[in-house]
Amino acid sequence: MLKSEDHFLEIVNSLFPMEHPHMLVGRGDDCAVLKCPASLCISSDLFLEDVHFRTRYFTPEDIGHKALAVNLSDLAANGSVPLGFSLNLIWPVYLDEEFCKRMLGNMSSLAAEFKLALTGGDLSFGKSLGLAVCIWGESPARQMLRGKADPGDVVFVAGEAGLAACGLSLLEENDPGLDRYPESVAGHLRPRPLVREGQLLAGIEEVKGLMDVSDGLARDLPRFCRRGTGVEISSDFKVHPEVVSFCRDRGLDPLEWALNGGEDYALLGACARKGWEEIQEKVPDCRRLGTVSDKPGIMLQGRELGLKGFDHFEK
Amino acid sequence: MLKSEDHFLEIVNSLFPMEHPHMLVGRGDDCAVLKCPASLCISSDLFLEDVHFRTRYFTPEDIGHKALAVNLSDLAANGSVPLGFSLNLIWPVYLDEEFCKRMLGNMSSLAAEFKLALTGGDLSFGKSLGLAVCIWGESPARQMLRGKADPGDVVFVAGEAGLAACGLSLLEENDPGLDRYPESVAGHLRPRPLVREGQLLAGIEEVKGLMDVSDGLARDLPRFCRRGTGVEISSDFKVHPEVVSFCRDRGLDPLEWALNGGEDYALLGACARKGWEEIQEKVPDCRRLGTVSDKPGIMLQGRELGLKGFDHFEK
Repeated sequence: MLKSEDHFLEIVNSLFPMEHPHMLVGRGDDCAVLKCPASLCISSDLFLEDVHFRTRYFTPEDIGHKALAVNLSDLAANGSVPLGFSLNLIWPVYLDEEFCKRMLGNMSSLAAEFKLALTGGDLSFGKSLGLAVCIWGESPARQMLRGKADPGDVVFVAGEAGLAACGLSLLEENDPGLDRYPESVAGHLRPRPLVREGQLLAGIEEVKGLMDVSDGLARDLPRFCRRGTGVEISSDFKVHPEVVSFCRDRGLDPLEWALNGGEDYALLGACARKGWEEIQEKVPDCRRLGTVSDKPGIMLQGRELGLKGFDHFEK
Repeated sequence: MLKSEDHFLEIVNSLFPMEHPHMLVGRGDDCAVLKCPASLCISSDLFLEDVHFRTRYFTPEDIGHKALAVNLSDLAANGSVPLGFSLNLIWPVYLDEEFCKRMLGNMSSLAAEFKLALTGGDLSFGKSLGLAVCIWGESPARQMLRGKADPGDVVFVAGEAGLAACGLSLLEENDPGLDRYPESVAGHLRPRPLVREGQLLAGIEEVKGLMDVSDGLARDLPRFCRRGTGVEISSDFKVHPEVVSFCRDRGLDPLEWALNGGEDYALLGACARKGWEEIQEKVPDCRRLGTVSDKPGIMLQGRELGLKGFDHFEK
């Protein structure tokens, strides 16, 4: 068990550097004081037990990774350079020191990979484990906003679609065939934030907007499109082989699954047609998803897909 | 009941301005983009049901106020000018739209008082109500840090000590004499963040440091003092009349109660002796608490006080 707040702070301080070029005043005072660029990009996300993860199949390392990764993904969608984050931790009494060290240890590895400073936070008891991260970075000169794509533009995705949803489904059902889906499982437990990809895309003039796909393309595509526009999905959009295999076994349509599945933390973007070649060259992970159309809705081969995605108020 | 995430966002957008000089890009995208000063002060605090508040005696308005006020208090302790905040909200399904509107409505009033922009956040279901606020402001030229006071310096307090703890005790016990303690109750339910006082104090050259007293003076004084130093408490430190009355009825020592009570969100500061007059003049709320001594511990009339304060891992 963790003995005291000071004990917890000792662990934090052993894992996260006390000094960082971004921190004028670091952890340990009422506030951190940051050396800031003129334009700061900021976001925050909750990561709660039994809502966003289960301790049954998330290791402490997975939890530490994903809580920070989903926040980094928001910065990625802005093309920002990550700078710092704060961590509010809701800690249930039954978790021990080892859990804490493993969870924060892996969070600190991901933070180090992106040169992120942990600037502070708060700690409180609670009935179940919860992490609330607030993250910020230096925003690029040109903003990567939603609602900027025009009819005819190419809609593309960097990263996977529906893969993490396969992992979630398999893990929830404790499926005996879990081992056949290593990338699906990794996609759900350890999403890779596409920070570098976001930065590269933000630097390409023809890119008209980016967003991260957390609730699934079905729900996020309409958020990405300007009012009155929609997307015509390409029938040749490549779905990950594990998604194809997963759906084949279950009599599901892989493309519909890919469009509905959430939590891949892929990047969704749009560009003028003439920019598509440059994008493929500079960010080979990008695949064409479809074309912006001049009427609302997500269309596939002439029919509108009845899609759901994820709403926090629906079950 | 709240019907959907969009329904919730509608409420937020009706209560908090979409435009603010601090926001280059406001709510509704992956990140907000902020126009930032070179030196940004940032902090975050959790505010959780049955840990920090109870819905039995906190109205929705009280919850909205206090969740933001405790965060503003951290900025106050830095002498910062508040700029913006993000709100992560954990929402239990049984709370209705009216609760949400009342809670966020009052939070928006406090935000407006301090010209704070709400830049974004996250929403998730949870078993009990919880708010995680991350707040930032423009830091003053000179940092108000802990551990900077020297032996002989005056230790002072702006705001009350032990008053909110009276309120908490009376509310928890559902005390029939509650009406006799209006300021104690208000102190617990609606602490006033001493933002203006913090700014004034940070502007006085002789002030050597500030911190906000959230866990009680007993626990926070040693955090404020440099290693090897302590505080000699003045026996004439004035305690609020409600604290005196509360303690008299219960056979308690008012000064000890005042030193142990938490959550007043008073400001604790220290200054060179010659600066004390200027402080009293410019920030009349400040009262002398004692003197920095050259040995550790909190001393009152020659004996060391056995004090506890609040640790999140102790009950």
